Amino acid sequence: MAPRAGIVVTGTEVLTGRVSDANGPWLAEELRTAGVDVGRIVVVGDRPDDLVAAIRSLADCDLVITSGGLGPTADDLTTQVVADLRGRGLRLDEELHDRVRTLVETLSAQRGWDGTGDDMAAGIRKQALVPEGAAWLEPVGTAPGLVVPGDADGPPVVVLPGPPRELQPMWADAARHPLVARALAGATELRQSTVRLWGPPEAELAGMLRQLETERPGALDDLEVTTCLRDGELEVVTRHDPAAQPAADALTAALTDRFGGAVFAPDGRTVDEVVAALLLDAGATVATAESCTAGLLAGRLADLPGSSAYLTGGVVAYANQVKTAQVGVPAETIERVGAVSEEVAVALARGVRERLGTTYGVGVTGVAGPGGGTEEKPVGLVHVCVSGPDGDVPRRLRIHGGRDHVRRRTVVTCLHLLREVLSGVTDATSGGPGR
Amino acid sequence: MAPRAGIVVTGTEVLTGRVSDANGPWLAEELRTAGVDVGRIVVVGDRPDDLVAAIRSLADCDLVITSGGLGPTADDLTTQVVADLRGRGLRLDEELHDRVRTLVETLSAQRGWDGTGDDMAAGIRKQALVPEGAAWLEPVGTAPGLVVPGDADGPPVVVLPGPPRELQPMWADAARHPLVARALAGATELRQSTVRLWGPPEAELAGMLRQLETERPGALDDLEVTTCLRDGELEVVTRHDPAAQPAADALTAALTDRFGGAVFAPDGRTVDEVVAALLLDAGATVATAESCTAGLLAGRLADLPGSSAYLTGGVVAYANQVKTAQVGVPAETIERVGAVSEEVAVALARGVRERLGTTYGVGVTGVAGPGGGTEEKPVGLVHVCVSGPDGDVPRRLRIHGGRDHVRRRTVVTCLHLLREVLSGVTDATSGGPGR
Repeated sequence: MAPRAGIVVTGTEVLTGRVSDANGPWLAEELRTAGVDVGRIVVVGDRPDDLVAAIRSLADCDLVITSGGLGPTADDLTTQVVADLRGRGLRLDEELHDRVRTLVETLSAQRGWDGTGDDMAAGIRKQALVPEGAAWLEPVGTAPGLVVPGDADGPPVVVLPGPPRELQPMWADAARHPLVARALAGATELRQSTVRLWGPPEAELAGMLRQLETERPGALDDLEVTTCLRDGELEVVTRHDPAAQPAADALTAALTDRFGGAVFAPDGRTVDEVVAALLLDAGATVATAESCTAGLLAGRLADLPGSSAYLTGGVVAYANQVKTAQVGVPAETIERVGAVSEEVAVALARGVRERLGTTYGVGVTGVAGPGGGTEEKPVGLVHVCVSGPDGDVPRRLRIHGGRDHVRRRTVVTCLHLLREVLSGVTDATSGGPGR
Repeated sequence: MAPRAGIVVTGTEVLTGRVSDANGPWLAEELRTAGVDVGRIVVVGDRPDDLVAAIRSLADCDLVITSGGLGPTADDLTTQVVADLRGRGLRLDEELHDRVRTLVETLSAQRGWDGTGDDMAAGIRKQALVPEGAAWLEPVGTAPGLVVPGDADGPPVVVLPGPPRELQPMWADAARHPLVARALAGATELRQSTVRLWGPPEAELAGMLRQLETERPGALDDLEVTTCLRDGELEVVTRHDPAAQPAADALTAALTDRFGGAVFAPDGRTVDEVVAALLLDAGATVATAESCTAGLLAGRLADLPGSSAYLTGGVVAYANQVKTAQVGVPAETIERVGAVSEEVAVALARGVRERLGTTYGVGVTGVAGPGGGTEEKPVGLVHVCVSGPDGDVPRRLRIHGGRDHVRRRTVVTCLHLLREVLSGVTDATSGGPGR
């Protein structure tokens, strides 16, 4: 049986959503792909009792990992609580104290703060306290991590800082610690494969899976299949023992047979990665002219490192005079059919392609809301167009939801339209749920 | 004593981070501001045993609320699990069945799917199953919510769908249900105030709070104060009983005394809201010319409804020829000092301001990484500039972290620079942690 780990994420700012937690899921994923069973992530605020209850509720695990609560402020109390829970006093670790002081002073110098004041000193001292018998992990930022041995009341606890860029490298460090290695011994690698689809509704996927089990009994028995609909994309994630690889491959094949071109990434790549690869393969460049998304599409096209190889730039044509002056959309057209129209979307795509001299141009114009909607042009009506060597491919989208949702879904739909054009698939049935 | 609620968020896609959870924190916030004590959010995957364990671990609460697991696919099993836990069978609710069928057929029609097939019918039937003795809540999407009575083993359970735009309106509905109202009876409103700062390190804030308690013993006794550092902004959130309002006001005043201009929102407004208000008050407009952020700043300036009143547009000047052709940055300048330089940031800000005819122009150029860094111009070096009627205010940023972090922090820093320029505060000490 696989070893079990439990995760506790601390921080009132996480519990209340002022900061959305990246650590729990990241740790769960790291552990699960390493073959460790993660059943629960518990999120608690900065209250000792809640943190105690959370760690106790995971006593049946082989290892507990906490994130956050290691900062210099009074509401950062993870070290104290874990020490108390495991009945260990706190001692100031001199070596660690020097290490943290140096880090804080260097960082402060870079940022033009005074790193030597009393407040700083108190914070440094707080971050250098270690429970008796526990090991500390090299700080990545200024806070060290901890490995606290288990006892009759519960398993060992790995204490990690809250910032993901500190937690992630430190976890690699923690996983190598003998105490952690022992707790997680016997884990066997769990393989994962992802298939991404654009278009079909989730119910059709569910039906296809039911059908598969009827036609080929046991086809899914050795697979843990989860499906998820996000931003209009359907994601099918399969986790399995290495021995079940054939079954996983068979499922991927069955999905491709059934849904054809709607399967845009049988290898689990994101649409961003697929579009980037298609542009690079074609040696093509792209430019955007965005109204309602106001730069979010260009910004996303620049998310991947090396994007300067295909993203030339774009125009945020928010005001109509910018559509005309910077992209060359005839004022007369806007007058006649309105800014939110297929004609303007096409003119934006053509115009930015021509002015920036790119292989492809993408035009976006729509009503993001909440205001500005009319009977004829309601909130959520968006016209987009990809213009390229083979002409223009416009799409009319009707997106239901709030302003953020409309803008985000528009960006995703543009990426898929660009993907379809680049891969020579532009049939109207593959426009996806955004339509 | 305040009634206690526990929250269970279901979904392997949430547990593994393919989707980040918005529901747990949103519900926690709704409940806490209503005076309900929320100690823990438990996140579980789509495994019955884990869901059972999670709900059981909250047996000490007066109410349990679950989100997700109400979809048509086989891995959506919340209704079944909750029914079993509370020892209630499932029945098909005919009225609900008709309701869901109509909703699915309408939605499918809009999206060009066939809503009448067997797969759809099975999904519709699944979503119309209700535990004996439970009440269902009007669907917002296609899935209804449930209010399941408690028993000796635990409190009532409110079952809500996963999509936030369905869950949020449905919770308002659920809160009015007699069973829920009874469970949460005796809650007294909890007030919350937020103060936002830009600049000082978290340790200075911690020191200031310690000092306050020394100078004015008991000043913080009736307040729950949490601090959080995010995107370089310091957020101080105070929760308190209405009776403690004076203490909360005194804290806000103390923060303003101590940190002066670094307190950019004593009223808890976001920097986006502050900048929007300043632009509207001044009747000013803004345009952006972005290289490394590639439209993210313009996109963010368009986040708020009504932003067309001040955001005119911008240029995504990713490639150098776009900086020159579309914004008028002299090629000679780029030749001489390089694209990532103060001169180019200033030229971008001036150029876009002039070409788009706005009151202010913002220029951004930097090395987002991971590649492209040199000894002289390392990854994380970003030059930004706000150009306006009173001249140019350039800033040199040195941001530590990955590509996403560098780009996100740059956007936030630009918003604050814009805020400082608009409010006539541009002293070099208020550049914030990004510097």
